[in-house]
Amino acid sequence: MSRLWDKGTPLDERVLAYTAGDDYALDERLVPYDVRASIAHAEMLNARKLLTDADLKAIRDGLTAIGAEHAAGVWKIELADEDGQTALEKRLTARIGAAGGRVHLGRSRNDQVLTAVRLYLLDAGRELAAAAEGCAAALASRDGEIPLPGYTHMQQAMPSTVALWAQGFASELRDDAQGLGATARRASRSPLGSAAGYGTPGLPLDRELTREKLEFAEVHQPVTAVQLARGKAEAQLLFECTLLMQDLGRLAADLLLFYTQEFAFVTLPDSFTTGSSIMPQKRNPDVFELVRGRGAVAQACLTEVLGIFAKLPSGYQRDLQLIKPPLFRGIDLALATAGIMSVGLAGVRFRPDQIKLDPAIHAAEEANALVAREGIPFREAYRRIGEKFRK
Amino acid sequence: MSRLWDKGTPLDERVLAYTAGDDYALDERLVPYDVRASIAHAEMLNARKLLTDADLKAIRDGLTAIGAEHAAGVWKIELADEDGQTALEKRLTARIGAAGGRVHLGRSRNDQVLTAVRLYLLDAGRELAAAAEGCAAALASRDGEIPLPGYTHMQQAMPSTVALWAQGFASELRDDAQGLGATARRASRSPLGSAAGYGTPGLPLDRELTREKLEFAEVHQPVTAVQLARGKAEAQLLFECTLLMQDLGRLAADLLLFYTQEFAFVTLPDSFTTGSSIMPQKRNPDVFELVRGRGAVAQACLTEVLGIFAKLPSGYQRDLQLIKPPLFRGIDLALATAGIMSVGLAGVRFRPDQIKLDPAIHAAEEANALVAREGIPFREAYRRIGEKFRK
Amino acid sequence: MSRLWDKGTPLDERVLAYTAGDDYALDERLVPYDVRASIAHAEMLNARKLLTDADLKAIRDGLTAIGAEHAAGVWKIELADEDGQTALEKRLTARIGAAGGRVHLGRSRNDQVLTAVRLYLLDAGRELAAAAEGCAAALASRDGEIPLPGYTHMQQAMPSTVALWAQGFASELRDDAQGLGATARRASRSPLGSAAGYGTPGLPLDRELTREKLEFAEVHQPVTAVQLARGKAEAQLLFECTLLMQDLGRLAADLLLFYTQEFAFVTLPDSFTTGSSIMPQKRNPDVFELVRGRGAVAQACLTEVLGIFAKLPSGYQRDLQLIKPPLFRGIDLALATAGIMSVGLAGVRFRPDQIKLDPAIHAAEEANALVAREGIPFREAYRRIGEKFRK
Amino acid sequence: MSRLWDKGTPLDERVLAYTAGDDYALDERLVPYDVRASIAHAEMLNARKLLTDADLKAIRDGLTAIGAEHAAGVWKIELADEDGQTALEKRLTARIGAAGGRVHLGRSRNDQVLTAVRLYLLDAGRELAAAAEGCAAALASRDGEIPLPGYTHMQQAMPSTVALWAQGFASELRDDAQGLGATARRASRSPLGSAAGYGTPGLPLDRELTREKLEFAEVHQPVTAVQLARGKAEAQLLFECTLLMQDLGRLAADLLLFYTQEFAFVTLPDSFTTGSSIMPQKRNPDVFELVRGRGAVAQACLTEVLGIFAKLPSGYQRDLQLIKPPLFRGIDLALATAGIMSVGLAGVRFRPDQIKLDPAIHAAEEANALVAREGIPFREAYRRIGEKFRK
Repeated sequence: MSRLWDKGTPLDERVLAYTAGDDYALDERLVPYDVRASIAHAEMLNARKLLTDADLKAIRDGLTAIGAEHAAGVWKIELADEDGQTALEKRLTARIGAAGGRVHLGRSRNDQVLTAVRLYLLDAGRELAAAAEGCAAALASRDGEIPLPGYTHMQQAMPSTVALWAQGFASELRDDAQGLGATARRASRSPLGSAAGYGTPGLPLDRELTREKLEFAEVHQPVTAVQLARGKAEAQLLFECTLLMQDLGRLAADLLLFYTQEFAFVTLPDSFTTGSSIMPQKRNPDVFELVRGRGAVAQACLTEVLGIFAKLPSGYQRDLQLIKPPLFRGIDLALATAGIMSVGLAGVRFRPDQIKLDPAIHAAEEANALVAREGIPFREAYRRIGEKFRK
Repeated sequence: MSRLWDKGTPLDERVLAYTAGDDYALDERLVPYDVRASIAHAEMLNARKLLTDADLKAIRDGLTAIGAEHAAGVWKIELADEDGQTALEKRLTARIGAAGGRVHLGRSRNDQVLTAVRLYLLDAGRELAAAAEGCAAALASRDGEIPLPGYTHMQQAMPSTVALWAQGFASELRDDAQGLGATARRASRSPLGSAAGYGTPGLPLDRELTREKLEFAEVHQPVTAVQLARGKAEAQLLFECTLLMQDLGRLAADLLLFYTQEFAFVTLPDSFTTGSSIMPQKRNPDVFELVRGRGAVAQACLTEVLGIFAKLPSGYQRDLQLIKPPLFRGIDLALATAGIMSVGLAGVRFRPDQIKLDPAIHAAEEANALVAREGIPFREAYRRIGEKFRK
Repeated sequence: MSRLWDKGTPLDERVLAYTAGDDYALDERLVPYDVRASIAHAEMLNARKLLTDADLKAIRDGLTAIGAEHAAGVWKIELADEDGQTALEKRLTARIGAAGGRVHLGRSRNDQVLTAVRLYLLDAGRELAAAAEGCAAALASRDGEIPLPGYTHMQQAMPSTVALWAQGFASELRDDAQGLGATARRASRSPLGSAAGYGTPGLPLDRELTREKLEFAEVHQPVTAVQLARGKAEAQLLFECTLLMQDLGRLAADLLLFYTQEFAFVTLPDSFTTGSSIMPQKRNPDVFELVRGRGAVAQACLTEVLGIFAKLPSGYQRDLQLIKPPLFRGIDLALATAGIMSVGLAGVRFRPDQIKLDPAIHAAEEANALVAREGIPFREAYRRIGEKFRK
Repeated sequence: MSRLWDKGTPLDERVLAYTAGDDYALDERLVPYDVRASIAHAEMLNARKLLTDADLKAIRDGLTAIGAEHAAGVWKIELADEDGQTALEKRLTARIGAAGGRVHLGRSRNDQVLTAVRLYLLDAGRELAAAAEGCAAALASRDGEIPLPGYTHMQQAMPSTVALWAQGFASELRDDAQGLGATARRASRSPLGSAAGYGTPGLPLDRELTREKLEFAEVHQPVTAVQLARGKAEAQLLFECTLLMQDLGRLAADLLLFYTQEFAFVTLPDSFTTGSSIMPQKRNPDVFELVRGRGAVAQACLTEVLGIFAKLPSGYQRDLQLIKPPLFRGIDLALATAGIMSVGLAGVRFRPDQIKLDPAIHAAEEANALVAREGIPFREAYRRIGEKFRK
């Protein structure tokens, strides 16, 4: 990017680069959603007699073909297109002529983009929830009756097992999956018909019809709420991605600890460790380190999105366009991490011969038993057992 | 705090100050929840024959009395108590003797504290949702047919009204209320019986019974998940507080803009403005500035909590105790802000005489009408209307 | 705070609580700086013939006495004072009559507060730098020839020593001390005479004279820059506090690792560990856990301050008042942490009998020696040594 | 990225994608620095008799040629290279044979990468400081005697001028330039010779010689400090980028306010505004909106880096590799923003006919004059002037 600011670059190109940025590339993933939403919008225009049957057919066929070509890799959005919406409209007009322009009636780029983003968010939320469930399932296969110390304060505290350790994480990963699923509430509100945020005075659109076609749970009402909501569903998905990443990061932190020579509780699959450039004996657990580190990346994506829409006066502001990079980065990160962890966890092996439980770890249990046996208060049992172990 | 590090202060006092911090004061709001949870725990112990009827009665009566005295301001937790749990146990034992120690059987400070926190979170979520609804209702009373420019990019874009402006915000505030309500899912899991995170081997506790008595939606299973979940429900509530604060902050940003001499769209209630120390003519909109600024405070509370439990190995860690200050700060902030905004909004008056709409603001509407009238593509209508206004 | 929003509380009280907040208590630490700056301002007014000799004497004597009484604990700022500046002026006027009002000539609360804050920042920076140096010195006393594994990826990698381990941290703590010292550049600019941010038209103030009396490095010019700079020096100090806290947090993370039963490399001083409520054998390293966790608190303070002044239009805005709580919280935190660590580090003992170096840890050294001896490329030596250790 | 997690992708490819990520592309900008540092390292090895003259010549010539080809765009790092260091070594060995492997003696990828990063940081800091100065200079050309209201609380407060407004920002931008320049202190410490963080036992390297050749201010001592410092210089540069971005963002916020129809204080250059897709009359100030929004992006880069190295045990950890993306993103962003603002500011025109000062804006000045004229206390003058304006 910096290269561009050299004295020689013409101003228009610099402004284009600063404003369009990587949008054209980012919009790639939105193309199928935009195709689907544009067809729904055209069908609604036709139902409202604002588009002829012939135009609708041309638009529907054209968009379907263009969408299929995009999916097949025949074309990509180019920098000169500036963004995905323009790219689609240009290709449609090139293919079907003037009718291509008619799909834009009663629609602004604002509600068009947001519709595609929300359809994408709904898909991403489902995919992420499934990925979190996948990790939980990978933990479930931990054959688990191997004894493991239960730690508090990183000190051996109470007896536990591999199963208990793994199921604790699995339970929280399923909780993350539920949290990810619940993000659909904010995303499932149809923006179509809000146009630039003030509706389409003079045009009798049917917002309910496009909502129904796109399977949104409700029409986002009133029109002025739509742009005010920009960033909120996105932030919620990133918040849940952050919780997922933090759970996976804590799981990785445990494994990194267990993999030290001093603990030596686990072996890791060879494919998950890498060598050193100067220490030939080393097998480093890079994947798990990166999982731990990427929790901070996810949190930064959330911070970025929250910062972008903070304090903005109402109504669409161009700042909101900046939400896409951290949104996509955070989602990709969480998906990739859950994906690699599902595989990695399947290869972790616990080493029962190496896992040593401090005899004192049974102290609480003994104190409990003393209470049950002698009916003395717990505080008294605690004192007596404590004396035994504190030498 | 810094004073303490002077050479003269004894080490123990310094360590106590560093570890207990303000916990004793923070725990004040948890006392009623701890009383309630302790009684439920004692009743369960009794049902399991781990506590005599006489002891249960003494504990229940004692805790009820102590809780009532606390509510009446008769006592407060003191620094020497270190934390609220100890404060309660000390007072109970002082009142009923040795039986007071028996309530601790099968319970660790870890699950005890967390139970109180979650009961508090459930209440706070409800109270916050009601406060957000209150703001939405205050906006609903905006008598709204006064015309207002609809802005995009801070430029007049399309015709709007005070009602549309207010209802956009009201809609999003109700969305926040729903989001706040939805935080109950994570909070409504009973920790009791998980003890220090590894259950209570040797003691036949009934986790379902305490869950039922405390009206949690489910028992948090398995025991190892409980400490792993620390911070997640708290972070979700703070995330939703942040969204609420950002919506209120954007509303305040609009009002600050509308209140400039250059816009002059609104008058603010006298009680919401303050004077200047050197400019006698000034009436400053301090409350709305602070609402705008406090969005950053709420976001920082969220950041803090997420940072605290990031990367921690599993099992309870003392770091988790640090969650309380940002949690309480964020909740208090959001409650106070929603409270003051409900009142403030009721006093805002729009000045129809001062609100000027740029004639060009009807351009999109005219273009729409041209399309509807002449059946030309929107792009063509756009071009023709654009020429008219762009001189 | 929430209590206040009950229906019964009068509006004025609610607005006062929302706007003044805890300012009155926060301002306590600024009183001595405000006294000093007010005297300097009065002396300048006198030099410019805007204050009589008699008034100057009354003001100087009055402020000096009031400051001494404050230092002695005779009075504190009260909620009804709203802030420290008002508190001081009220007490001065009460003591010396009308002349007390004359010190306010040519000064706004804006430049008055900021002057006190910057004088405080300069002191705090120095105190923090000394505290960081103190920790570095505590590490220097590590009697260090005990061998220690050097880790990469948490795996034993190369031979090291306690001295090398300790001196690495000491070096970075001294770097933090330098960074903290360097924050003086932004803080050492005199705001006095900028008034509300637009100077004092009609009054011939001498900004250079007050700068000199208060030992600021330069006059902050032009007057409009002063309010624009709000938050920058504060953020820089918090940024450096965050680096210090992160270095101390990583040091704590190492010690927590070394203190596990599995590593068992160190013993910790008894005064730095605490017991468990249900596991009588436990000695928990709470202080070090809290040091680790408080890095997140420091970072959140920085985030909060940056968020507060982000995007604000120029000129003083009330939002800026919100900077004080995170500023003071972050500074106190770093000071307390460095203080407790200095003491704690002195009590850490390494256990040479427990520290086991993996024989393979010498592989890189052997490969180096092979290169030196046989003149073969390192890659070749690496391969040969690697074969030996990888079985 | 997500595509990759499809069931069909082989594990090795998935692990490579997760661990190498975009590193290969990110390392592009480090190639010239790595070439320079590798030559310095080879020269030092030669001076220490660890590399023959012939090998040194081959390495120097080879690296110089490869570096020139890279600068000319002849080759780029490829995914299969994994990272820039490997890419360089592969190309060197392909060109000069076995001697290519000899440059790696006494060097780990850890100190190699960090040396290149720090050389880059020094350049980036200089370039950023120059860009900030460029913006300040662009403001200096504001021909400035046009009267402008001075605002506090977004209310007209005191008389000001365009020059005072512009010079306030220029002063703070020069302060940012100084802050950016000061980041050199942390970056200018030579890592070479620290290898993987524990030096090169058995090899008599000369760390001072490579420091001198690369013009670092000092050798980073001891070797264990080097990896502990990872992220600190990077974070400081991002912190200063954030301050720069926030100053530019606040400048943009002012211009967006001044550009509203209601203020109408300025016109913006046509090349800096864009049209609307449905409102033909609109000219939107997109560039300035994006400048305002990108402050949040810069702050997120800082947050990300701080989060990555938080809490890590000492010694190199793979997490640290994650620092590069936010580092480069933040630097590019700040450079591009300062670049576009320098141009944009030059095109802003103030409209003296549209700028209306409220008569009350002179109240403070009149009060000051009254004090000077009648010798009454300011409080009394304030009261009298206030009465006049408050009707």
